[in-house]
Amino acid sequence: MHSADPFLFQLFFIFVWAKLFGEIFERLHLPAVVGEILAGVLVGPFGARFVVPDEAIYAIAEIGAIFLLFTIGLETSPKDLLSVGATSLYVALAGITLPFLLGFGYMALRHDSLHESVFVGAAMVATSVGITARVLGDMHVLQTVPARIILGAAVFDDILGLVLLGVVVGLVSTTATAWAQLIVTAVEAIGFAVVMIFYAPRVVRRMEPGLQRMSTQDAPLIIAIAICLGLSYAAVKIGMAAIIGAFFAGLAFAEYSPRWNLRPRAFAINEFLAPFFFFSIGARLNLTIFDRRLIVSAVIVSVLAFISKLVGCGLPVLHSGWKTALKVGIGMTPRGEVGLIVALVGLQMNIISSSAYALVIFMTAATTLVAPPIMKLIFREDSPPEPAFVERRRSAM
Amino acid sequence: MHSADPFLFQLFFIFVWAKLFGEIFERLHLPAVVGEILAGVLVGPFGARFVVPDEAIYAIAEIGAIFLLFTIGLETSPKDLLSVGATSLYVALAGITLPFLLGFGYMALRHDSLHESVFVGAAMVATSVGITARVLGDMHVLQTVPARIILGAAVFDDILGLVLLGVVVGLVSTTATAWAQLIVTAVEAIGFAVVMIFYAPRVVRRMEPGLQRMSTQDAPLIIAIAICLGLSYAAVKIGMAAIIGAFFAGLAFAEYSPRWNLRPRAFAINEFLAPFFFFSIGARLNLTIFDRRLIVSAVIVSVLAFISKLVGCGLPVLHSGWKTALKVGIGMTPRGEVGLIVALVGLQMNIISSSAYALVIFMTAATTLVAPPIMKLIFREDSPPEPAFVERRRSAM
Repeated sequence: MHSADPFLFQLFFIFVWAKLFGEIFERLHLPAVVGEILAGVLVGPFGARFVVPDEAIYAIAEIGAIFLLFTIGLETSPKDLLSVGATSLYVALAGITLPFLLGFGYMALRHDSLHESVFVGAAMVATSVGITARVLGDMHVLQTVPARIILGAAVFDDILGLVLLGVVVGLVSTTATAWAQLIVTAVEAIGFAVVMIFYAPRVVRRMEPGLQRMSTQDAPLIIAIAICLGLSYAAVKIGMAAIIGAFFAGLAFAEYSPRWNLRPRAFAINEFLAPFFFFSIGARLNLTIFDRRLIVSAVIVSVLAFISKLVGCGLPVLHSGWKTALKVGIGMTPRGEVGLIVALVGLQMNIISSSAYALVIFMTAATTLVAPPIMKLIFREDSPPEPAFVERRRSAM
Repeated sequence: MHSADPFLFQLFFIFVWAKLFGEIFERLHLPAVVGEILAGVLVGPFGARFVVPDEAIYAIAEIGAIFLLFTIGLETSPKDLLSVGATSLYVALAGITLPFLLGFGYMALRHDSLHESVFVGAAMVATSVGITARVLGDMHVLQTVPARIILGAAVFDDILGLVLLGVVVGLVSTTATAWAQLIVTAVEAIGFAVVMIFYAPRVVRRMEPGLQRMSTQDAPLIIAIAICLGLSYAAVKIGMAAIIGAFFAGLAFAEYSPRWNLRPRAFAINEFLAPFFFFSIGARLNLTIFDRRLIVSAVIVSVLAFISKLVGCGLPVLHSGWKTALKVGIGMTPRGEVGLIVALVGLQMNIISSSAYALVIFMTAATTLVAPPIMKLIFREDSPPEPAFVERRRSAM
């Protein structure tokens, strides 16, 4: 653009536009992430062209996705995961199967290619823990039974979604469509997950004395970053997506995150890098391809995404009453980062078309925007009454 | 290289090589920074070619330099600066003038171009606060008079060095070599410094109520990053180096850094990005150009850099005794980040040759390696005896 240093220009303005739209969305009680994506759509290359990201910015966005999944992993303790019990696992499993089948089925009916259908199905799988947790936290209902089931299921859901992405990427990377290949990749992905969930935390635990002997300042953070980058690279090497490695790296360090003060520092890196990722997601979305047919498809895909999670996640807890089933079902509907990254990987690998990419972005934004107001409505009965807040505020003073 | 994803490959291995050499250097009681640079020299494109950074990595290195100077600025409170008194200012002024004149003079005698001579002179100016402070802190002598003079002077020194860089870049950017232009640029640079030191902290103070009303999570960190990127871009726009803007952005937030918890989080971003900067510095250094003549020049420049700081910074405090003068003089000799960045800017602007670049890197490494052992020797008399440590350790338990 009209600039002495185009890279610094992009760096500054992408950060500011993304955060500005994020702030506006927050004030409207909408998820900031959707605002950051919208910034990319509106001022990016397919919009007003105020900022057109070049390769260096997309590289930073790639690191942004890696640290985003790393921080999600850091918040996901394998210990908690193993203690939340069977209910969450059932909710997660049913909540993955139904959206995948419906998404895949609809795309296949539209006569999209097999690979594209598989990718769109996979992008519909993963619930966004962040948005749900934020709403539940704001309402002070995190300790209720439905909330605990949701958060436990969302964790399984992330892991299973990433394993599914690993399988899908592996499957598509090979020219052979043999089922044998699918099995090999699935075993690889599940093996990676099992090793990282059960074995890696022990390795990290054994590393501790060594870390304390290290002369490098902030050794735990440095080692965590190195392992995050290393596993991202390793994941790509064995034919999966980089973010899967990053997520499992976070998972391995989750237990030690409080002691080593990793969380606030990994989050700081994320605060800087993530806006470039979300802006880039939007910058790749061409709004002008939304013709009548695509809009209809986008609405159908969004409705399928919504209903499939609602039913898939609600059914396993129906025995606890329809109210609980509704709360759990609605709480699991928002999709987020993982779905966006699945779509991005598909676009970069030339597996999905820009219209299928647009479908996924639309579906993600729609489910993310629709769920919070409904959650506020149905969780209102669990929310502590006003006096409790006053009490709490007073005692904190 | 032989990789599915060359960018992730570089990202992982540059980080690991830099940190590995940093750790080895720390264990040898040498500055980690020199190790990280050496990693770039040895495994980079002019060395073993294990990792050859591409444009995206150099872009990340550029952001690394920006956050490096931002964190240095965050540690530099304008308030403290105004209270350290005249001694530190005299030390800084003399300690800048002499190295610049000797560096410039020697290069001009070697018949290097005027611009190149000015750049090498400017790169010899700025003391590295980090290395000196680390050694003094490790010896528990930060509260002695010489240590306080050193730290105060090093701060002035950074600011004056950056103003000088601003003037030099501005001067070289224009084709006219008119003295009028020099004066305009100098006024611009000094004006920028004065505004940022005296006025910007007040603006930040007034921002506080607004920040608390913002809906964006971590609003202070987001705003600080945005202003850091914005001032970096603005500095380039008015013809100075990006890092000058970043440094002054840090300075403006220094006072509020503890309250907003900015320091540990800006440092975390820095921990991730800085290794790419130092590795890149080394990766641009071609060791094979060190022929007999260049080695002689490099040694001469290093000796001049050492003596000019020793004399320039020692003389103003000679009235306090030769021991104090020696301590202050030696403590000011290590050069660091600012000199490296000056050389890099010169190389990127095609103002200095790769041999002048090599001279500066050699001089920086030499002064950084030589100073700490001498400091340990001459500050030993001020260092508290062992029992004090035992006492302290016991009371901490």
